[in-house]
Amino acid sequence: MWTREQRYRRLEEATPEEIASLLEIVHACPFRQTFHIQPPMGLMNDPNGLAYFDGYYHVFYQWFPLGPVHGVKYWYHMKSTDLVTWSDEGPAIRPDQDFDSHGAYSGSALERDGELYLMYTGNKRDENWLRYPSQCIAVMNQSGEISKWQDPVISKPPNGYTEHFRDPKVWKGDAGFCAIIGAQRENLTGTVLLYSSPDMETWKFDGELETSLPNFGYMWECPDYFELDNSGVLIFSPQGIETKDDEFQNIYQSGYLIGNKVNLASREFHHGEFKELDRGFDFYAPQTMVDPHGRKILIGWMGLPEIDYPTDKNGWAHCLTIPRELSIQNGKLIQTPVEELQALRKQKIKVQAHIENEIKSIEGLAGTTFEMKIKVARLDAAEFGIEFRANDRKKTVLTYEAKRKRLLLDRSLSGEDVGIEYGTGRACSLDSEIVTVHLFVDVSSVEIFINDGEEVFTSRIFPEEDGQDIRFFANHGSVDMTVEKWAI
Amino acid sequence: MWTREQRYRRLEEATPEEIASLLEIVHACPFRQTFHIQPPMGLMNDPNGLAYFDGYYHVFYQWFPLGPVHGVKYWYHMKSTDLVTWSDEGPAIRPDQDFDSHGAYSGSALERDGELYLMYTGNKRDENWLRYPSQCIAVMNQSGEISKWQDPVISKPPNGYTEHFRDPKVWKGDAGFCAIIGAQRENLTGTVLLYSSPDMETWKFDGELETSLPNFGYMWECPDYFELDNSGVLIFSPQGIETKDDEFQNIYQSGYLIGNKVNLASREFHHGEFKELDRGFDFYAPQTMVDPHGRKILIGWMGLPEIDYPTDKNGWAHCLTIPRELSIQNGKLIQTPVEELQALRKQKIKVQAHIENEIKSIEGLAGTTFEMKIKVARLDAAEFGIEFRANDRKKTVLTYEAKRKRLLLDRSLSGEDVGIEYGTGRACSLDSEIVTVHLFVDVSSVEIFINDGEEVFTSRIFPEEDGQDIRFFANHGSVDMTVEKWAI
Repeated sequence: MWTREQRYRRLEEATPEEIASLLEIVHACPFRQTFHIQPPMGLMNDPNGLAYFDGYYHVFYQWFPLGPVHGVKYWYHMKSTDLVTWSDEGPAIRPDQDFDSHGAYSGSALERDGELYLMYTGNKRDENWLRYPSQCIAVMNQSGEISKWQDPVISKPPNGYTEHFRDPKVWKGDAGFCAIIGAQRENLTGTVLLYSSPDMETWKFDGELETSLPNFGYMWECPDYFELDNSGVLIFSPQGIETKDDEFQNIYQSGYLIGNKVNLASREFHHGEFKELDRGFDFYAPQTMVDPHGRKILIGWMGLPEIDYPTDKNGWAHCLTIPRELSIQNGKLIQTPVEELQALRKQKIKVQAHIENEIKSIEGLAGTTFEMKIKVARLDAAEFGIEFRANDRKKTVLTYEAKRKRLLLDRSLSGEDVGIEYGTGRACSLDSEIVTVHLFVDVSSVEIFINDGEEVFTSRIFPEEDGQDIRFFANHGSVDMTVEKWAI
Repeated sequence: MWTREQRYRRLEEATPEEIASLLEIVHACPFRQTFHIQPPMGLMNDPNGLAYFDGYYHVFYQWFPLGPVHGVKYWYHMKSTDLVTWSDEGPAIRPDQDFDSHGAYSGSALERDGELYLMYTGNKRDENWLRYPSQCIAVMNQSGEISKWQDPVISKPPNGYTEHFRDPKVWKGDAGFCAIIGAQRENLTGTVLLYSSPDMETWKFDGELETSLPNFGYMWECPDYFELDNSGVLIFSPQGIETKDDEFQNIYQSGYLIGNKVNLASREFHHGEFKELDRGFDFYAPQTMVDPHGRKILIGWMGLPEIDYPTDKNGWAHCLTIPRELSIQNGKLIQTPVEELQALRKQKIKVQAHIENEIKSIEGLAGTTFEMKIKVARLDAAEFGIEFRANDRKKTVLTYEAKRKRLLLDRSLSGEDVGIEYGTGRACSLDSEIVTVHLFVDVSSVEIFINDGEEVFTSRIFPEEDGQDIRFFANHGSVDMTVEKWAI
């Protein structure tokens, strides 16, 4: 149990010796990742300030340094030239002003005049623990030095909205700067608010983004609006959505609306239905950026609020997803791993497999951290699937039910339990037959891209260290597949 | 060679991993002390803000975290209930404001209304590297939280003085608050300036303290004025004093004037001659505090500016002296180790020794960290002395020349060299015969109190790890002594 005092203890109060001993505990954790962005210690959550700036991809993330809890938040900074190797730039925005004294909360980045503008939510609480959110600006120069503007640019929520007013996403529109901010109406429903500014300094509240979801959860976090393939896309993370069949199984959701481009004058957004971005166990608060190749790249938080994780006992929690390129196909947002990730590939093995009413391993095919691509050539089994990070006792299982075109990820036997109050299975149905399964497996996570990104399952798993086996199975029939696997 | 950029790199820019790896290098150093305050990493210099407050002794010190160089300075905080065991309170004042952007330089502490007021020098440089000093206030509450006042209380040096204007020592006088500040006149001579204030906020420049040393070095650092045994005492650290016989051998000096109590109206100080506080190799910038027992306690920096030390290669430098109680005897400031240090004493050995035209060890008497008290009962040798931290090759030697009543500390063979451009011997003459020699030896230092504090030799030494031998010698005669030694 962490006291409020412990959760609001600042990094600056820790001695170097304390930091070193916290790191030592983290380093002893068997679940540290190898190719995912993870905090050096403490808890990470939302990715923030994604941008390509000054020759680098920049990723910041929400960070409480001194333990695996949601304490007072900093921005931590990583940068990369290739989206694969990340250099650790250390703490970036600190909660050191009155207006952000209880956390430098999530926000976004925009390049302007050779500097990177970071717009974020200052979270302040008073002695009665009442929350005062504001939207603030910090500016990073090309040396990586960050200076905050003296006062918030948006000092409080507009009338009619509660103190849940956060996560500005800023962009440059035709007529000036635009920002979209997650909010809660006074009737306790979630929405997003539009602001505009000629200079990033003076912001005008324009009104709500007019969606056809007036009563969809009690809060919308981390909104991200962008245009792609001639459509308008709103990604956000609503809280308070009820479970429906295979959908909305996690504590909080993360998904998107696709529609026409938003008319900023009327603020109208005509869109289709809300779809989940990910069908796995651990995915929240994604953010996007555009890179010089014109790619729209998404990175999510591979974690969820209010859930304990097995790494807590080693003083850290969570990681980010691999970067994924977005596109739109058939009214759906498609995520594919950025091609730069191929740089991670080491020893390759490629086999053709025929599996028939059996479960079997393939000689030489095993591992704890790997990329694996399965191409289904012919399928007449009722079910087929893959077990991975397995040993005699434990396994994570992906099963395809051919008749229902339904995929099921089962982590009931993965290893150490996590979030079991929200179930141990996640499932979704495909529009078409299964063709490809593409896995990225790290020490304590799996990201599974189905049919080149039509669906994605992103999940933490906490397997046993010798859980290296990979097995394939087919029931009531057979399957022919090509399997390519690269050690990472 | 450290670049300006490296020296002005902030702790806040370092990642936790970098801090841990810096600490690892420090921990591998064979010269880490066991009972002296030393920095966790980086460079320490002046003790700051000495105070007894809220049930604790507080010691802050000047600190550059990221290497063994004089970079951008922080205040680091240690506290103790007994002056022996110190708890590490971490970084305290950070150079995070415009007015202290290039260092939170030295200063002092004063309790007021249940809070500890820290008055310090804000050091700022502009793009042309011109220096702008100011005097600033930070306030620490009983939870150890420190908040800075928004603006310096003394924004610049008065007319007639250069930018060398620093190290405020503040106290509460009969008519209000007083501060004494180290300064340099425009004719490039050193002095100290008096300021007064009704409220710590508005300060009036009263003028110089009128001493009889109008031309004594080019700068006076770290002034400390206090009254003791009905006298006025001014301790300061003048720079630019020339060597004279055995005196003023170090690069910079540290000493005191004793006189009448200063008349704050006339600012006149009638005093005797300037005397060095310490006769060893490494002592500078001491500061004092009064404790609830009425004791005046002094702690110094066991180091000197502009000298390289063997620990530099392990990423740290310097320590503080043990706390010493001050008294005045025969117009001289007497320093004795505070009695609480007896808590450090472990195994004791006590022997009577007769040494005659020989050098000899005493069975069971050896060690690397220890306290040793020698009482001379009878002496008819021309010279006698002690070798310690010795092995077959190395030794540190204290020799007493009976005829001249002169003591000589020789570190030419101590171990790794340090500051040899300023010589390898330090000496002083006593007013009376030698009676007691009291040593505190740590892994890489020795503090020697002669005749119950009449003279003190404070020095870093960097011996070989197996240098544990202790030997006594007498030439041209004999000496009878009682030796008490405690392992620490």
